[in-house]
Amino acid sequence: MIDFFEIIGLLAACITTASFLPQVFKTYKTKDTSGLSLTMYVAFFIGIVLWLIYGIHLNSLPMILANAITAMLSLFLIIMKLKHK
Amino acid sequence: MIDFFEIIGLLAACITTASFLPQVFKTYKTKDTSGLSLTMYVAFFIGIVLWLIYGIHLNSLPMILANAITAMLSLFLIIMKLKHK
Repeated sequence: MIDFFEIIGLLAACITTASFLPQVFKTYKTKDTSGLSLTMYVAFFIGIVLWLIYGIHLNSLPMILANAITAMLSLFLIIMKLKHK
Repeated sequence: MIDFFEIIGLLAACITTASFLPQVFKTYKTKDTSGLSLTMYVAFFIGIVLWLIYGIHLNSLPMILANAITAMLSLFLIIMKLKHK
């Protein structure tokens, strides 16, 4: 059975991951990456991968889910930035 | 003694929290909040507070530190948005 705090964690995962989506959709639609900082997204991506490793170590499903998805989304933005600069 | 994975977690905490700072500095300096989405920051703030609760439950220092600081920074951006809209 999933306990109360796992639900809190999953809710947190959904909300913070979802808050990243508008940027992804906007960049995908417009291909405009002029406002994106490559340095910031590369740093952010590295940070998220470290959170993912830490989440795997803690065996935390919310952390693994949220950071795996956010890592992929930020990698997508980095690729878009490199392709359309 | 702090183990290897706690260091990974603390590094993750530093990097993702730091990647939030340029927005905070820019908003503080320019007071220009026209490009900020209030809905998104309020949702993000709620998500971060839930991560903080989850991190306290897991007794994870990196999660508590990162999310406490990020919650304060995003609350600051929300207050700036409400003050300067």
